[in-house]
Amino acid sequence: MRQLKIGIAGGSGYAGGELLRLLLSHPNAEVIQVTSERFAGKPVTRVHPHLRKQYSLRFCKRAELKSCDVLFLCLPHGSSSQSIDFYRGLAQRLIDLSADFRLGQKEGFIYGIPELHRDKMRGANLISSAGCNATATILALYPLYKNVLVDLQRTVVEVKVGSSEGGNRSSEASHHPVRSGTVRSFMPTGHRHVQEVIQELGFGQDISIHFSATAIEMVRGVLATCHVFLKKDLDEKAIWKVFRQTYKEEPFIRIVKERDGLYRYPEPKILAGTNFCDIGFEKDSHSNRLVVISAIDNLMKGAAGQAVQAFNIMHGFPEITGLEFTGLHPI
Amino acid sequence: MRQLKIGIAGGSGYAGGELLRLLLSHPNAEVIQVTSERFAGKPVTRVHPHLRKQYSLRFCKRAELKSCDVLFLCLPHGSSSQSIDFYRGLAQRLIDLSADFRLGQKEGFIYGIPELHRDKMRGANLISSAGCNATATILALYPLYKNVLVDLQRTVVEVKVGSSEGGNRSSEASHHPVRSGTVRSFMPTGHRHVQEVIQELGFGQDISIHFSATAIEMVRGVLATCHVFLKKDLDEKAIWKVFRQTYKEEPFIRIVKERDGLYRYPEPKILAGTNFCDIGFEKDSHSNRLVVISAIDNLMKGAAGQAVQAFNIMHGFPEITGLEFTGLHPI
Amino acid sequence: MRQLKIGIAGGSGYAGGELLRLLLSHPNAEVIQVTSERFAGKPVTRVHPHLRKQYSLRFCKRAELKSCDVLFLCLPHGSSSQSIDFYRGLAQRLIDLSADFRLGQKEGFIYGIPELHRDKMRGANLISSAGCNATATILALYPLYKNVLVDLQRTVVEVKVGSSEGGNRSSEASHHPVRSGTVRSFMPTGHRHVQEVIQELGFGQDISIHFSATAIEMVRGVLATCHVFLKKDLDEKAIWKVFRQTYKEEPFIRIVKERDGLYRYPEPKILAGTNFCDIGFEKDSHSNRLVVISAIDNLMKGAAGQAVQAFNIMHGFPEITGLEFTGLHPI
Amino acid sequence: MRQLKIGIAGGSGYAGGELLRLLLSHPNAEVIQVTSERFAGKPVTRVHPHLRKQYSLRFCKRAELKSCDVLFLCLPHGSSSQSIDFYRGLAQRLIDLSADFRLGQKEGFIYGIPELHRDKMRGANLISSAGCNATATILALYPLYKNVLVDLQRTVVEVKVGSSEGGNRSSEASHHPVRSGTVRSFMPTGHRHVQEVIQELGFGQDISIHFSATAIEMVRGVLATCHVFLKKDLDEKAIWKVFRQTYKEEPFIRIVKERDGLYRYPEPKILAGTNFCDIGFEKDSHSNRLVVISAIDNLMKGAAGQAVQAFNIMHGFPEITGLEFTGLHPI
Repeated sequence: MRQLKIGIAGGSGYAGGELLRLLLSHPNAEVIQVTSERFAGKPVTRVHPHLRKQYSLRFCKRAELKSCDVLFLCLPHGSSSQSIDFYRGLAQRLIDLSADFRLGQKEGFIYGIPELHRDKMRGANLISSAGCNATATILALYPLYKNVLVDLQRTVVEVKVGSSEGGNRSSEASHHPVRSGTVRSFMPTGHRHVQEVIQELGFGQDISIHFSATAIEMVRGVLATCHVFLKKDLDEKAIWKVFRQTYKEEPFIRIVKERDGLYRYPEPKILAGTNFCDIGFEKDSHSNRLVVISAIDNLMKGAAGQAVQAFNIMHGFPEITGLEFTGLHPI
Repeated sequence: MRQLKIGIAGGSGYAGGELLRLLLSHPNAEVIQVTSERFAGKPVTRVHPHLRKQYSLRFCKRAELKSCDVLFLCLPHGSSSQSIDFYRGLAQRLIDLSADFRLGQKEGFIYGIPELHRDKMRGANLISSAGCNATATILALYPLYKNVLVDLQRTVVEVKVGSSEGGNRSSEASHHPVRSGTVRSFMPTGHRHVQEVIQELGFGQDISIHFSATAIEMVRGVLATCHVFLKKDLDEKAIWKVFRQTYKEEPFIRIVKERDGLYRYPEPKILAGTNFCDIGFEKDSHSNRLVVISAIDNLMKGAAGQAVQAFNIMHGFPEITGLEFTGLHPI
Repeated sequence: MRQLKIGIAGGSGYAGGELLRLLLSHPNAEVIQVTSERFAGKPVTRVHPHLRKQYSLRFCKRAELKSCDVLFLCLPHGSSSQSIDFYRGLAQRLIDLSADFRLGQKEGFIYGIPELHRDKMRGANLISSAGCNATATILALYPLYKNVLVDLQRTVVEVKVGSSEGGNRSSEASHHPVRSGTVRSFMPTGHRHVQEVIQELGFGQDISIHFSATAIEMVRGVLATCHVFLKKDLDEKAIWKVFRQTYKEEPFIRIVKERDGLYRYPEPKILAGTNFCDIGFEKDSHSNRLVVISAIDNLMKGAAGQAVQAFNIMHGFPEITGLEFTGLHPI
Repeated sequence: MRQLKIGIAGGSGYAGGELLRLLLSHPNAEVIQVTSERFAGKPVTRVHPHLRKQYSLRFCKRAELKSCDVLFLCLPHGSSSQSIDFYRGLAQRLIDLSADFRLGQKEGFIYGIPELHRDKMRGANLISSAGCNATATILALYPLYKNVLVDLQRTVVEVKVGSSEGGNRSSEASHHPVRSGTVRSFMPTGHRHVQEVIQELGFGQDISIHFSATAIEMVRGVLATCHVFLKKDLDEKAIWKVFRQTYKEEPFIRIVKERDGLYRYPEPKILAGTNFCDIGFEKDSHSNRLVVISAIDNLMKGAAGQAVQAFNIMHGFPEITGLEFTGLHPI
């Protein structure tokens, strides 16, 4: 089986750890190098304890990187773009997980949400993996915006996020006694991720997304609650059709909307470790509001998982390769 | 000191437990009877372990209730109204914590949010304590609606709630492995509490409140995130003035909006056990949206605390009597 | 590839859900039937939401069970033994996850901890899967007891357990506001699981295990802290050797004892979904006490995972088949 | 009413915040100064958000401290002893919350557990407040050791602790994604706090306490599970008598041991904010082991609460003054 040599630049963070986990079981990939300036020389299991007994690899320094087939960039925002020529010199194919190339197809990077851009991603050499909040929001709203079914100025999006979204560097705000049990409106308005949403959902029109982000007691996960206002009266059956039509072939999108049971709408906790984006909705019976709810694991469909999905598409591998984990319940 | 004889009908639930706690330190109140059909004969500490060594009282049956000065009704929705004559026969003053008398001043009950109806509450005999989600929402929006500063049709309100809001009866949905770590959109649209909000904020106009409720990992607390759209351009300073003007004398409302620190906006966890409603806001710099955030303890300002505040107002006692607890940090 | 027909009796519980998940990716197994009296006729995804899009199977009633190659019994304690002839009539091979056949090789069932009984399990037809607390305790202590290194009367074992250990039936004790954040000494002394431990570690001698169980805020996981008193002075290096010698070939046991880093000793959370038992230890520098710490996922190495491991051993499949998941971090 | 001028050195930490909260409602105390080198000039509410609207005080620098009646020292371990003359020059009475003076009555400091040393504390000028783990352990074991009922060499103590025990400085280990949901055996053996326990329970004999500490998902609270081995056969009734006799007059000790209900044994969560130490026990029916369980709030009975209790005793105030809060349920 064709096995590609993989490098990971910036592999000591949470997305890097997930990439290592996913590529471990990927039959077409072999991770040959992972960088971390801070942990260079130490085994990757030093910071990724879930990989014990799985990897004997050690971190190397960026300067030690060798040529490889594909390089994943999991660097802090700003780093990839600063040294893009260096990285392009190392590998023909780059998948960047930072925000650096998400807007405006900078440097020729394709915006890496497969459900929107699969065709362009096939055979692409440069993919910029979408942000986690943007991914959850875009996938929830895409069918409605593409079909121009909603008022383009009124949408309100509230995401609830876990603490891993802030990365692996500790701070006073992430100190457990402070962060634990919090419901913190850390970004009541605005958000750099909205630019991605507007880019992807605008379709040439001027649109507004009224965005808020609240940090809650959770480590992994994003729940996006999107309030959209329908331009004409559609019942839930018609809306179901719209979503189904858009996503029916998608391996990682599930429409979740049940009449009974305990998990009637999407919930991020059962998605931990998976690449799924679950989407549900409810039509307000007293107004033209439709509430669309989407859930992802921010480190998976919001980062490493979507990057591996991109990797598969780039190379023509079956799209779910390495992404078969179905999640845990209860958890 | 004048000490009133207090009865509590339905005292085995969470609101009943909090009432017992609050009235314990109230110099003008003595709880003489608490009912519970299920636990009749057992000490109140059997279900309220935090009151150990504080109360030697035992639950009695409803049928055993004697006359008293004030009767708090903490019964399931529907129960108070069914037997209202019975309860009125027992005490001149009733404070009902259920939803039964909240709408339309039924039976002459005053809607018990002091910040809106203090004058009517003074000397009133019948008070219907507001719901927890309604309280958080109304207090966040009242200054803006009263001063007609916002688009009356566009407001979107998202509340995040803890598990104690569902009461003390276990269910499959409240089973710890299921409920723990959840972010559950249990009420994407609509909510009986919206009726209260509309009643209080309408001021004779037709208004819409687009409401959603999401259950999160938390036991006590409500955070309401309210997205309103300003009719004319007001900066944050002007908005601050509006809130300040409305609430400056209020003992239980704090405007929380700080430039730095870890608690820049309201957070429910530091309000556990207190009667505060903390309110903050942020103006979207790119649109006319204003996000108003309010936090309460659902069992306190959303239930027992507000009921004791009502009790104090009814009788002309200092309003904070029994409600002095300032909350814990860290928690 | 030889694919065995699998039945699961009692498949609506947590262990049943995990079995379904594990067997999904098992190349030698096909689940053809799952029973649930309560959910008969409903899709398995109704109670196992993490299996959405993976299974189209529906629950059937026990009475509808057909012959199959292997039957997993995930029934309440007492049920398997009551109808053992019925189940033996359905399949040649049974793996029972209840406590019914754990003691005394009842009915010929082999006690299913592979690390102790692999040889007897090979080719066995009847395996009784060990309890979760017993598994964690036995694996922590086995090398020391087998080599008669500790005082047989003094061992104190404290397990900290998550809420999923109690199963999927809700109760007042599992009600989220009650169970959340608890540190509940629900079994200060004694425990039916100790009988298993004594059976496995006695080696013909009279031994005492002073056992306690405390429920903590966690859904999945067991941490066993075992205080043993060494008969002669062994340093940590010598102890390491003993553990290493016993477990060096074991695919699911990892010795975790690091000098630095954040995960120096075993921790259950990074084991969620895996079949690992991580074991670490520290020698008290002031006494002959050795503290051995072991961590497992109670639904995996403590239930379904160990059962699949037994299934593999019974049939001569590679032992880790279906059990490759390495766990998540952070979580 | 006589009102003492209070200073707090090192008031930006968690114990300092709790002291401020407690002294707020203390009729005989007025906090006139609080130091923090880091936050000097900033309002105390900047780091103690639960005190908003309660205090207008600002932090000052240590060098700005003025004379006062009583000075509480909430400094990092090592700081108080280094500058003890400076602090003694400022106030006649010092209550030190660090570990500096706990052992050996250094500098004349009395070890501040009232249940053991109330008489010596009356009128004392220097009190060293006991550590949190030591307090929970000592109070659990004191009646048994004082009456020489247990084997002095065999006791095993396991404490489960929350994250606030580590103080308010963030670290990689306290980073929420890492610390959340953990069950971390951070101190399998040994512990500086054991020295305090041995000092207090030895009564001139050589005793061993086999101590372990495990960090669990919790912010506040300590649960100590103490396994002791009785020298002669006592039944639970006899043991109850021993505890009752020792503690019957104690305002902050409750014996918690119930036959039914959800809170049969001590649990720290319902003690948050209170000065209680709840103690329960169970006799092993198969051996001479007795398991004694004690719970406290580490910031209260384990720090600030016990310090205020000491303050009350020193001055002859009623012992519960300022410590009336009874805790919350559910929480």
